[in-house]
Amino acid sequence: GTMKVLRGPKNVLVERTLTSSGVFLLQMGWGDLGALGEPSKETPNLDQMAAEGMLFLDFYTASPLCSPSRAALLTGRLPVRNGFYTTNGHARNAYTPQDIVGGIPDSELLLPELLKKAGYTNKIIGKWHLGHRPQFHPLRHGFDEWFGSPNCHFGPYDSSERPNIPVYRDWDMAGRYYEDFKIDLKTGEANLTQLYLQEALDFISKQQASQQPFFLYWAIDATHAPVYASKQFLGTSQRGLYGDAVREIDDSVGKILKHLQQLGISENTFVFFTSDNGAALISAPKQGGSNGPFLCGKQTTFEGGMREPAIAWWPGHIPAGGVSHQLGSVMDLFSTSLSLAGLQPPSDRQIDGIDLLPVILQGKLIDRPIFYYRGNELMAVRAGLYKAHYWTWSNSWEEHSKGIDFCPGQSVAGVTTHTQEEHTYLPLLFHLGRDPGEKYPLSFASEEYQQAVEHISGLVQQHKATLVPGQPQLNVCDQAVMNWAPPGCEKLGKCLKAPESDPKKCSWPH
Amino acid sequence: GTMKVLRGPKNVLVERTLTSSGVFLLQMGWGDLGALGEPSKETPNLDQMAAEGMLFLDFYTASPLCSPSRAALLTGRLPVRNGFYTTNGHARNAYTPQDIVGGIPDSELLLPELLKKAGYTNKIIGKWHLGHRPQFHPLRHGFDEWFGSPNCHFGPYDSSERPNIPVYRDWDMAGRYYEDFKIDLKTGEANLTQLYLQEALDFISKQQASQQPFFLYWAIDATHAPVYASKQFLGTSQRGLYGDAVREIDDSVGKILKHLQQLGISENTFVFFTSDNGAALISAPKQGGSNGPFLCGKQTTFEGGMREPAIAWWPGHIPAGGVSHQLGSVMDLFSTSLSLAGLQPPSDRQIDGIDLLPVILQGKLIDRPIFYYRGNELMAVRAGLYKAHYWTWSNSWEEHSKGIDFCPGQSVAGVTTHTQEEHTYLPLLFHLGRDPGEKYPLSFASEEYQQAVEHISGLVQQHKATLVPGQPQLNVCDQAVMNWAPPGCEKLGKCLKAPESDPKKCSWPH
Repeated sequence: GTMKVLRGPKNVLVERTLTSSGVFLLQMGWGDLGALGEPSKETPNLDQMAAEGMLFLDFYTASPLCSPSRAALLTGRLPVRNGFYTTNGHARNAYTPQDIVGGIPDSELLLPELLKKAGYTNKIIGKWHLGHRPQFHPLRHGFDEWFGSPNCHFGPYDSSERPNIPVYRDWDMAGRYYEDFKIDLKTGEANLTQLYLQEALDFISKQQASQQPFFLYWAIDATHAPVYASKQFLGTSQRGLYGDAVREIDDSVGKILKHLQQLGISENTFVFFTSDNGAALISAPKQGGSNGPFLCGKQTTFEGGMREPAIAWWPGHIPAGGVSHQLGSVMDLFSTSLSLAGLQPPSDRQIDGIDLLPVILQGKLIDRPIFYYRGNELMAVRAGLYKAHYWTWSNSWEEHSKGIDFCPGQSVAGVTTHTQEEHTYLPLLFHLGRDPGEKYPLSFASEEYQQAVEHISGLVQQHKATLVPGQPQLNVCDQAVMNWAPPGCEKLGKCLKAPESDPKKCSWPH
Repeated sequence: GTMKVLRGPKNVLVERTLTSSGVFLLQMGWGDLGALGEPSKETPNLDQMAAEGMLFLDFYTASPLCSPSRAALLTGRLPVRNGFYTTNGHARNAYTPQDIVGGIPDSELLLPELLKKAGYTNKIIGKWHLGHRPQFHPLRHGFDEWFGSPNCHFGPYDSSERPNIPVYRDWDMAGRYYEDFKIDLKTGEANLTQLYLQEALDFISKQQASQQPFFLYWAIDATHAPVYASKQFLGTSQRGLYGDAVREIDDSVGKILKHLQQLGISENTFVFFTSDNGAALISAPKQGGSNGPFLCGKQTTFEGGMREPAIAWWPGHIPAGGVSHQLGSVMDLFSTSLSLAGLQPPSDRQIDGIDLLPVILQGKLIDRPIFYYRGNELMAVRAGLYKAHYWTWSNSWEEHSKGIDFCPGQSVAGVTTHTQEEHTYLPLLFHLGRDPGEKYPLSFASEEYQQAVEHISGLVQQHKATLVPGQPQLNVCDQAVMNWAPPGCEKLGKCLKAPESDPKKCSWPH
């Protein structure tokens, strides 16, 4: 229905039959945008993007941690289905450090694989995070180009114990973080965001010249600890180094959007900005962002861990200044991007994402729940304005006593618990309109509670009855699989000798 | 200098030589505005006001409580100077319940008194709160018209024990809350905001017709517990009753601004929106608002208690969409309104407010500190982005154990203390850019700490050396002074017999 309208050429300068998609994915908190109340208000470009597009206020990631969220975005499926979770412990967050053995299974169909069928060229710039062993390489999973790294830019590492993380250009490594791609941990200086920006601009120019539709996944990592910014942005924010990084990202987003406009293809390019998890409050104040009025942050299934800033931008299609309360998810970017390309999502598996185009273009509201998973456990479910917690946990007393705090300065009795508390028979219920900060559980005796919980429990039953969990990918770690000798290392003289294989259960403390 | 530009007639329809002023003063939290990140985003008119005017992100009230803030706004002076504080206890918040004996001293010069000299007609709509005994009547202190109440709309009271609060029209009472001006405490229904809106529209029309400059102080109380809204707004907010009240206020502000535009006098009318204290979290979730990312709320000298939403609006003068980080204060509305009228502030006394016109019209930043008082104690001082706490206190253990919590869900060790903690020799220092939530005191040993504290301590010394405290007005309570027989009660048959005088020290628990 809608697609006929969307697929016609929108700009005479560039006669394209398909709408390109760009996804900006960052680790930023809901409250990091000026438009969402960050008191320093230092994101003029993102604020402008929202003013020209549609701001989603109730948009979620699929996991309070990076790798599972990214896998969910690219597969349109919950991590518990696509394998990006662990069964080593109950309700544990897991991701893809460089000693992880698993990665994205070949059986999963990724967005770029599907978009290829419609003639798209697909590029990932930044952090892949879906596994770094050869079979998990993004160019084996639908991407045509890559500039970035497979893992987080932690380091610097001692090569004999642990290699520095490689940065790839397409199939081969182009160097390593700290060695060839410098990050000064003392000053926070690194020019990486500028490199990633230039990659994006060049890719878009090339695609415009060849008149090919494209999918650009700009998944940069400057706001992930260790936070960094280019020299020209250092010290420019009221917010310290984290704010400098946000300013540089904001500036880069502005430049990318302007580039689309200058090339005359903005009306053929659907762009979405969001985040893979809430701000990591554990890194605050120097390296952590803001989750605004929400409870806790990254690693938790409270709103601060999973509600994300989200902006859809598509001049000429999305009415400027729109605001939506649609419950949205990063998984919807899978279905929406397919829809823009005139493709159907795969029908042989459960897809959790929904097509947001009716929301974005016609202002519709689609009734759907949000599932808040932590590893292998469904911790909470939101339907409408109600959120039911079936399990509560921030982290363990043991970790907390070491100063690891996912809810600094926040403490809600019986909610931000340091033991895993089961509420499956009597879930804690919050009304997120009256109480966005999840501080006041509704009375179990109230009619409001009973009606809402009955409804949500029905959704849970339905969800669990049809759930086929994927083979867990994040259970086994092995020092031998680290980035000792990535492809292309010989040319650079950067190959290191791997130790003997010694597979172990990965330890996931929270 | 500036005034010559400002005072010329701006609109041919209404040849006026002076710019009128409107001040909206409400109890709303910083985070209650959609433009400041309230997740329901239900304030389209206030957001539009900000988009057309200037949004102040670092604007403060003069006290974490209502009466002292209002006295400060109208006198341009800190409560400790104008008498709106108590010495009954250390660092206690006090206000003007109906058994208070004190009120605004005759020696204080109020903004409307001064504006009269420039030919202004002055009206207060809503809560006066500067004393309810005859000598404190607003029409004795410069206002020409009044529709509203002297005290908070608490009730309903039993007349034999405590009379319901009167609502005045000018000199005389027009009835009482709950009796003649209904508030349904069960449903939250009351049409008072509509009455206050109509009063404002009528007053503006009348002034426009007579071509007289005016000062309108619209100080309504729908968001103060007991929160209320008109029938047409009940149940319309995602946020519950508090949100309904906010929506009605937002709608009313929009109507008043539109009225100014339709009358052709918007370019001759300077309008400012702000709040007298942070959201009262004690009333959450049903009747409390949001202080966004800030710590605690009303009653405290943390940011949540005193940082306020603030918007200046003056089409044709203020560039649309402006944002300012000027440290501002409600006391500045005194000096700024005088400046707009071509008047000088009184020179025989210390004025704490500053003229914001250079900030608003020329984008200047004026270096000035913010003093955070709680009663008779200077609790904290902000200069630039640094805030030093000389005392910390939320409330007493005794009160807290009764469930009175000014920081629900928040707890910062050593900061949100339940005993009054003195830090005068080694103040707790926060950087509000990196840490707007006041969670991470800077290390005492750091150079940054030492430089900032040295600077702030100099400001404190200077402030204290010249401080002449006013006679405290909020020390004595007496049941005989309650609103038993307000002027005009005879005509309405609403006079009640006062009990014998029994003056006592008022009890101020926090």
